Amino acid sequence: MSRVHNFNAGPAALPLPVLELAQQELCDYRGTGMSIMEHSHRGKAYDEVHAAAIALTRELLGFGDSHEVLLLQGGASLQFAMLPMNFLPAGASADYVLTGGWSEKAFEEAKRVGTARVAATTCEDGRYRRIPKQSELALDPKAAYVHITTNNTLFGTQWHYVPETGELPLVADMSSDFLWKPIDVSRYALIYAGAQKNVGPSGLAVVIVKKSWLDKARTDIPTILRYATHAKNASLYNTPNTWGIYIMRNVLEHVKREGGLPAVERANRKKADTLYAAIDAAPDFFRCPVERDSRSTMNVGFRLPTEELEAAFVKQATERGMIGLKGHRSTGGIRASIYNAVPLASVEALVAFMGEFHKAHG
Amino acid sequence: MSRVHNFNAGPAALPLPVLELAQQELCDYRGTGMSIMEHSHRGKAYDEVHAAAIALTRELLGFGDSHEVLLLQGGASLQFAMLPMNFLPAGASADYVLTGGWSEKAFEEAKRVGTARVAATTCEDGRYRRIPKQSELALDPKAAYVHITTNNTLFGTQWHYVPETGELPLVADMSSDFLWKPIDVSRYALIYAGAQKNVGPSGLAVVIVKKSWLDKARTDIPTILRYATHAKNASLYNTPNTWGIYIMRNVLEHVKREGGLPAVERANRKKADTLYAAIDAAPDFFRCPVERDSRSTMNVGFRLPTEELEAAFVKQATERGMIGLKGHRSTGGIRASIYNAVPLASVEALVAFMGEFHKAHG
Repeated sequence: MSRVHNFNAGPAALPLPVLELAQQELCDYRGTGMSIMEHSHRGKAYDEVHAAAIALTRELLGFGDSHEVLLLQGGASLQFAMLPMNFLPAGASADYVLTGGWSEKAFEEAKRVGTARVAATTCEDGRYRRIPKQSELALDPKAAYVHITTNNTLFGTQWHYVPETGELPLVADMSSDFLWKPIDVSRYALIYAGAQKNVGPSGLAVVIVKKSWLDKARTDIPTILRYATHAKNASLYNTPNTWGIYIMRNVLEHVKREGGLPAVERANRKKADTLYAAIDAAPDFFRCPVERDSRSTMNVGFRLPTEELEAAFVKQATERGMIGLKGHRSTGGIRASIYNAVPLASVEALVAFMGEFHKAHG
Repeated sequence: MSRVHNFNAGPAALPLPVLELAQQELCDYRGTGMSIMEHSHRGKAYDEVHAAAIALTRELLGFGDSHEVLLLQGGASLQFAMLPMNFLPAGASADYVLTGGWSEKAFEEAKRVGTARVAATTCEDGRYRRIPKQSELALDPKAAYVHITTNNTLFGTQWHYVPETGELPLVADMSSDFLWKPIDVSRYALIYAGAQKNVGPSGLAVVIVKKSWLDKARTDIPTILRYATHAKNASLYNTPNTWGIYIMRNVLEHVKREGGLPAVERANRKKADTLYAAIDAAPDFFRCPVERDSRSTMNVGFRLPTEELEAAFVKQATERGMIGLKGHRSTGGIRASIYNAVPLASVEALVAFMGEFHKAHG
């Protein structure tokens, strides 16, 4: 069967050339007579993969020795706990900006570890429709850090500016928009991202942490939960997810070949513009519940006039090979996740179907 | 190139039919038009894989509702911390039996979380050559649990009996010998194992925990670090390592097809017997430093008369396609890891080479 149009929210589409390469060398990694999964994480073949994944992350994002790159397990959900365990000592408080379900979860975990407060929230009537403005951020001048979630998969919103936090360390959960465009890493004390949207398969999280901040982390927590442990051991303190890192390395090589993050950003903007234009062109039928300047380039949510029509839309789209369009159970509606590896052709197929469906039911 | 003889200590050999199946369906998982890595962890295709991995673990080990099966990230190293975080409350103490480097690490992590003591150790002159006898276990009658490491990869020792701990919950790190033979799960309060020896790729840990014990776990720790969180959500609280679980499912199906754990045990004993017989047949040249009744069926360590000969042995073996034979840097010597997926033919090739090498250098 041919490849479907994959609009899954995560785990999500991977670049076809990356999959084809993985397939080709699955049983025999580059003449070594073994799968990469069977190689020792201390051996030469895997070590090259591991080092390249870290070096390519640095190269694509353009940062140097100021920050460490860590390749960890446990996804963003473990980061919700590791972050305060490392950087929220007793007596301190951390600021969280709430923009969706994932930032709420991060906040709840911080409160299990220590003291955390809400620096801003855009929740109204139980829903989030926008990103707060800089002027709305009520920061605690003594906060241990300020936490934001740069893209919100459930509600389809995204930060389009980097908040100014002065001397306060800025921490960003970029799980669902990591590597979607070039960013200035120097603005962040810590970035974390589950790999399973833009970077690779699930079971892997990328952490970028400022070295000078790392020095201030707590040391009285379990060894495996200390960022410093992984920094000191180049993410080889324990056996890493070698397959996940192998796929990540190949994804990053693919991104580099395709022109790096400027090219990725152009492609992503083109996809998002195409899809939002189709929504906006038929405001009586399609409706995006998110404020315009908070719209996500990664997760495009929209409603149809009735839930029955939404169900029919998802069903017919699935029959045409467009999968993953049903909105999250907490929000309803339609959601098209158009991460890096989703081609423009998939968005164009969706837009064409939207037109047909509108014509038939409008 | 043909497949090498893979004696890696972990990540380690996987069954060739499992790799071939993964290769075949990598870009298109069973007609779905997507890789299994691109499927949602909440979707039907992946859900079947996930449920089968859990069901096959139960079926192969023959246990029912008394215990939960959890599929977690972070490997055994995270378990070193999760175990005491969940089951070692303030005021309590846990007993650890030290039989090698990994049990030492587990013990050290427990001490970072709470109070732990050594119930027995077989360390002599910095080395472990045996498993303690039941009579040597000085158990604290009030211990929160008793922790053992059933197989010791560094030193090549293995428990060949299940210690009697009375009312005390028995916890076993089975990372390097999980599923090597049938076991009586009812004897254990908790079993954990990194997948990357006998079950699948790295980045995945299997935990089997007694439900009645789970009810006694602490609830005031981060959500992601609570076993109860994963039990309640069938290991889908957060996005699991879907690829790792997919390979694990395929490995377990392979084990079942080959006759289940009784057949696996026969094959493993035959491999270990063959290799130890070759060592014992030339006591002036090959020497196994481990006491006979503590010998591991998974990691067979032996010494040659000099370190120079050991280096030459590893080099020549590698040239003949036998890889991973160099002992751990902490122990030296030769180590052949002969986990489930290493075929008898690899052991026979090694034994043949040992004979040649002995003839040339003996």
